Formats: sequence, C-alpha cells, structure tokens
Amino acid sequence: MSDSTTQKYAIGIDLGGTSTKFGIVDKDGNIIEQDRIPTSSEKPINYFIDELYAKLQPMIDKAGGKEVFIGIGMGAPNGNVYTGNIEYAANLHWKGIVPIAHLVTEKFGIRCSLTNDANAAAMGEMMYGAAKGMKHFITITLGTGVGSGIVIDGKMVVGYDGFAGELGHTIVRHNGRLHKLTGSRGCLEVYASATGVRETAIEFLESNPSTLSLLRNYKEEELTSETVYECAQKGDEIAKNVFDFTGQILGEALANFVMFSSPQAIILFGGLTKSGSFLMNPTKEAMEKNLYQVFKNKVQLVFSNLKESDAAILGASALVL
Amino acid sequence: MSDSTTQKYAIGIDLGGTSTKFGIVDKDGNIIEQDRIPTSSEKPINYFIDELYAKLQPMIDKAGGKEVFIGIGMGAPNGNVYTGNIEYAANLHWKGIVPIAHLVTEKFGIRCSLTNDANAAAMGEMMYGAAKGMKHFITITLGTGVGSGIVIDGKMVVGYDGFAGELGHTIVRHNGRLHKLTGSRGCLEVYASATGVRETAIEFLESNPSTLSLLRNYKEEELTSETVYECAQKGDEIAKNVFDFTGQILGEALANFVMFSSPQAIILFGGLTKSGSFLMNPTKEAMEKNLYQVFKNKVQLVFSNLKESDAAILGASALVL
Repeated sequence: MSDSTTQKYAIGIDLGGTSTKFGIVDKDGNIIEQDRIPTSSEKPINYFIDELYAKLQPMIDKAGGKEVFIGIGMGAPNGNVYTGNIEYAANLHWKGIVPIAHLVTEKFGIRCSLTNDANAAAMGEMMYGAAKGMKHFITITLGTGVGSGIVIDGKMVVGYDGFAGELGHTIVRHNGRLHKLTGSRGCLEVYASATGVRETAIEFLESNPSTLSLLRNYKEEELTSETVYECAQKGDEIAKNVFDFTGQILGEALANFVMFSSPQAIILFGGLTKSGSFLMNPTKEAMEKNLYQVFKNKVQLVFSNLKESDAAILGASALVL
Repeated sequence: MSDSTTQKYAIGIDLGGTSTKFGIVDKDGNIIEQDRIPTSSEKPINYFIDELYAKLQPMIDKAGGKEVFIGIGMGAPNGNVYTGNIEYAANLHWKGIVPIAHLVTEKFGIRCSLTNDANAAAMGEMMYGAAKGMKHFITITLGTGVGSGIVIDGKMVVGYDGFAGELGHTIVRHNGRLHKLTGSRGCLEVYASATGVRETAIEFLESNPSTLSLLRNYKEEELTSETVYECAQKGDEIAKNVFDFTGQILGEALANFVMFSSPQAIILFGGLTKSGSFLMNPTKEAMEKNLYQVFKNKVQLVFSNLKESDAAILGASALVL
C-alpha cells in the first residue's frame, strides 16, 4: 500500500543521558512537530518505549498514520549502526546490550534504524548545518559528556564494529582526573564537558583558597558551567582560568584529532559552547600550538549554528530519509 | 605504443630519512630487482634525483626500457598524494615544498605518483601483508621516527589536504619530552621510536645512578634500541623498564587511535618491533587498559610479517599498479 509518494515523513529520535527529543521531519528537513520526555533509564527499557509511544503515536496519527512514514531514525549513546543495539552505554542506567531498534520497530510497526547520538548530530550538521557541503569534518559535542562524529570523504566513520568516534574517552592527561562512570583516568570527557568545567572550578577554588572569586558566592551544588561563564563575563579571574584550562586541554585533543584525519573543519556544539570566546580562544590557540607544521592555520574551528536538539533530530531522521 | 599488455612493471620507491629503497615490481607483487641509496637530503634535490637515476635507469633498461613500465610510485615523509610534493618534512633537510613527483617524472620520462611513506607501507600490508583482506586497520611504523597509515572501509585516509595520519606527532604527554626537529613537547615519536628508546635508556640510567645495569657497559653513543633489547634479553632490569615505559606510552596512544576509527587490527612494523614481546606485552596491556568498554579485547595488535623495505616498495608500487 505504502510507496515513495505516500511515504513523506521520517521520525528522528535523539536519546540522550537526561532527556529524549523526537520530532516528525519532512523530506526537505523541516521539523513539523517535536517534543521530549525524560530518558528515565533507571526504569526498565520497556517503560521508556511505552512513554515514547504515548507521546509519539498521537503525532503519527495526526500526520496520517504509520503508512506515511519512511522510517524511524534514532541516535543514542553507544548506538551501534550494525546491530541496532545500545551497547554498554556509560551514561545510561540500562546495562549491557539493549536491542532498542528492534523494540521500537515492534512497538510502532515502523522500521527503526539506530546510530551513535554524536554521529546523528554530525549527519545533521552535514545536511543542514555548518558542515554543509564538506566531506571531511569532525563534530564534537560538549555537553554533560563529550561525544564526537567523524566524517571522512563524505561518509560517517563507523569502523570495523560500528563504534568509531568515541573521542570523549581518549586519554589527554596520563593518570589524570578519574572518570567516575568508566574508571578511566584523564580522558577528554572529564575536562571538556559541562561536568568537567564544574569540577575544574571546584578544584581551582580549593587550590587557591586565598584568591577572591565571584564563584565563592555560590554553594558547591550551584556551580555549573553556566555560573562559571557568568562569573567570567563579569571579569572573574578564576572563572576565566577555568575556561583557559579547559580550552588548553580541548585544543590539544583537537590537534591530535586533526593529525589523525586531516579534516577541513571541526564543529563544536552542545551546552558548553554557550561560553563563546572564553572557551573558543584558548581552544584555538592550544590546537594551533600543538599541530604539526603541515596542519597549522588550515582547519576551521567553529561553533555549530544549528539548535542542538534540531541537529540531533534532523541527523537521526537522515538515517532513513 | 605502450599499452596494458606491454606495460608489465611498476617501480616502487621508499624515500626514508636515512636511505631510499627502490625496486622493480611485477603485476603479481614480486620484487624483480631492488637496491638502495643514501637519501642525502643535505644536498640539493636535483643531486638526489641524479643519484636515483644513475642506479635505477640501468634496471629499467634491463627490464625492457621505459615503455614496459606503468609508472613510478613513491612513498616519502610528508608526501602529498594530491600535489605530488614533499611538504615541510621534519626528517629531511630539503626545506619547504619539494615537487618531487614532477622532478622524477621529468627525469625518467615515466609518470610518478607520490604518497606519504607510511601510507605506502600500509598499502603494502593491505595487498600483501598482515592486513590482507582487512578493510579497517592502522599501521604504525616504529623506526627512527613514528609513522602511520590509516585504512577505513578499504581506503587510505588522506583527509582534506592529503596529510592525514601523522600519528607520530600526536601529543601523548602534556609538556613532555622535547621533539628537537618540530619543537613540540610530548609527542608519540619522541618516546616510541628507536631514538626515543635510546633517550629513555639514557634518562633511566641517569635517574637511577646507583642501580647496576648492563647498559652501563656501553658508551652513550653506543646506546641504541638494539643494545637496550640485547640487555633486556639478558634480564637487565633497567633495559626491561625502558620497554615497559615505551609500551605503556605506545599502548595508551594506540587506545586513543582505536577510539577514533575502531579498526579491526593495528599492525606494527619498523626496527623497534625486533624487541618482540619486551615491547608487545606492555603495549598490549596499556592499550587494553585505556580502551573504553566497547572496544576491549576486540582489536588485533600484531607485528607485520613483511620485510620492512618490501612493504614500502610494494606499497609504493601499488600506487600505480
């Protein structure tokens, strides 16, 4: 019954550590309708699928029923494009292997394809964002964690087993800060995420007890990357040092990524990019400083111009569109 | 005059920091004849081309003249596949941009194609070596320096500007050992090369002045990765610690590379691999320790089974075969 003329929509789902955003997308990349639910991964996966269904099914009905849908594309942490499973995701409570594409397909009666959440966002950037027309780029999500999507020759790099592009887990400081969820030490994610900026602020306040700082007006639980940004804007030295330190580590890591795949651009997105030049300037400086001669002053380092949730929903929908 | 039936040979040239190896290769990947000259990059490039011609032209004549050759493939440090130039190679004295493919084509009257030396070796591994049949792998050359070739989906990764895969220059120890040629600090090459092993041995001897070691029987200028290996074989603790330290850093770097491109295998070759399990065991241990869960116990870490010079000559010839 259904064919390419009646199938005019896709569903894009961005399953994140905290919330899951989803939307109905047409063939031109317009998000017709969107919503979100908490990811609630502390409850069984079927509970989550039921919640998603309760919100999405009315949207599907309104659009004309499942017959008008080409498919469901989903991005999720550790989502494996080959198997359709979420496998050992550190930021989710569901343990081990979760056959989420299969479960969604069964529940909705619409075929679901899965990929890594950061890869979905990179596809969104390539189709509709800062990487439009580019064939070699890397996207780095600076959010609660650090994710990444790598495009080489116009194709997502998924690697031998589908898990390529876990750059947030690369080690940037030998024996450095502990990652409480993975047990590793000194990975990029513990420094260059919103969580990392908060931790750095706490460390800097503790190790400089006699230095005045606006950050001391906050209780420890109130310190976030946003409050650090606000204090930096007011000229606070410790707050600015926090971003200098974060940018130094991020830039060094980006230099290493450039020397791997020689991209035309690196696109940063996620909550931490709201810190603007406080983060961008030291990052760019450290990246250039650590690049081998042949790469210097060639790579564009830019913030994404897509709304974060849009990039991920659009990218996920592009899996099936 | 020439066509695919009369054109039955290729020339493979491996231009290295110290010596340049070259050979005549048939369509089945047999090296018919080979030789080498010193690279002598302290003299002008034309001098080098003339020396190469003096040795190669008699081989070409013997094989039947330039008409029976499909082309010349060359691998060189910082060789750019797009431009045919060697650009800013740290390990060569020729400065700036050297249009070597053009010069060789002119001199020999046979079209010359250029690539990065490590990429040439990776192509040799893919066609004739440990990576035969693999579509996702990384080769790491552990020689005087550290080179790398990256294959994703069966294709060499060259990146946006042709310089992808400079993994020896990635930073593995923030503010670490100085790289005298590039000015960078803490890159992989200063630790996991033959030069790096020698430096580590000198450092360990100096920082443990009261520890007995067979390495003290050598004058400093006699200390090489080979002498360190010989002492390790005799049970020398400092010599074994040198390899443990080297493997720890190399393994950590390899873990980062795995988390980038998710390869099926990493293939190590070059002089330092003669150290066998003294290097392999700590490298493997450190790699596994630093891998994010989804990558653990999946990636083959092996030594190349090709003769080093053969891999590079064969790989270079594969550029045109």
